[in-house]
Amino acid sequence: MAEVHEMTVGVLGGTGAQGKGLAIRWAAAGLRVVIGSRKAERAQDAAREIAEIADGQVTGEDNAGCAAAADVVLAALPWDAHADTLGALREQLAGKIVIDCVNPLGFDKQGPFALDVPEGSAAQQAAALLPDSRVTAAFHHVSAVTLADLSVEHVDLDVLVLGDDREATDVVRELADVIPGVRGIFGGRLRNAHQVEALTANLIAINRRYKAHAGVRITDV
Amino acid sequence: MAEVHEMTVGVLGGTGAQGKGLAIRWAAAGLRVVIGSRKAERAQDAAREIAEIADGQVTGEDNAGCAAAADVVLAALPWDAHADTLGALREQLAGKIVIDCVNPLGFDKQGPFALDVPEGSAAQQAAALLPDSRVTAAFHHVSAVTLADLSVEHVDLDVLVLGDDREATDVVRELADVIPGVRGIFGGRLRNAHQVEALTANLIAINRRYKAHAGVRITDV
Repeated sequence: MAEVHEMTVGVLGGTGAQGKGLAIRWAAAGLRVVIGSRKAERAQDAAREIAEIADGQVTGEDNAGCAAAADVVLAALPWDAHADTLGALREQLAGKIVIDCVNPLGFDKQGPFALDVPEGSAAQQAAALLPDSRVTAAFHHVSAVTLADLSVEHVDLDVLVLGDDREATDVVRELADVIPGVRGIFGGRLRNAHQVEALTANLIAINRRYKAHAGVRITDV
Repeated sequence: MAEVHEMTVGVLGGTGAQGKGLAIRWAAAGLRVVIGSRKAERAQDAAREIAEIADGQVTGEDNAGCAAAADVVLAALPWDAHADTLGALREQLAGKIVIDCVNPLGFDKQGPFALDVPEGSAAQQAAALLPDSRVTAAFHHVSAVTLADLSVEHVDLDVLVLGDDREATDVVRELADVIPGVRGIFGGRLRNAHQVEALTANLIAINRRYKAHAGVRITDV
């Protein structure tokens, strides 16, 4: 497996806040980044913006082109588009490490709550749709605002990396570690992804109560 | 509402590791603690042990006596006994703050996993069984080993306190704050308790991988 700094990282949904924030950090760390979006033109616009902020190598493609071009692919898709987009990319994503960071949440008058996912979690849905890929789950709790602001030189966050493939989770942990301040920590098997995704609802509730961009640190590790 | 240091805290299931660990810390902080167990004699044995370790005021009762004697009651019950025990105490727990710290987990060859709970979570099950009580959820991620060891003078942990009753969650946050190093942080409404309970499966996976007693800190709060 190539050294993580030599990898090309694809970001499906890289025009959204979470994908863009991570793309900025990876590009700033010297990785090649390919932004994916439904329309190549929108991806290219976002890529230019990210390249400028990060002073890095960033290109844009439609989602299929992004998946085909990348060594490792982050799925930073809206939950509504998660199943359809990934299901259509089974061939392009075969054999690759896929990182699912999607949090299936709903909002009502009482605030955020976790949605029921028939497969158990977004990550398990990805694994079911992509049987030829090495599906992991990570980067659920990143603050897009903090990531996009490179003046924040120390991002105070542990990234829980879940998956059943040890080599894959190790690569994803390294992708977390390239962000200054961030630690990638193995967080369990994929079947335990639901609660990590759903915890984002609690962090949003904390953000509202404490006017914060709350993240998680694991102690004693 | 009385000042938290003047309260009597009941610990249902106080002969188990998690309940005993918290009872030790509360007794050491000067709170009156009543241990509850199915058999009063077992509770009294545990109470003597805890009183000695903590140099505090600890008594033992059967579960009904414990619930009746306490101002605030921690349910540190085995999941198997959760519904039956709480359902039988509706009268004794009426009007009181109940803290549910139960993590409904299963274990198989692949390690820990979250159990499905029809009500959504142990805490929501408690709320359904105790409509006259002020049910909160907290203390899910405490390490019993660390709590029981008073030579650990700084417990590196944030306690997420969930509930729909602001005054009740504030009292429970104070009960967390009396443990040196610990911070009680509001963690959302009771309907978001499942993922906090289930996250214990991930912490156990982390403990196994890293040989740790992992806890959680919330950053930027």
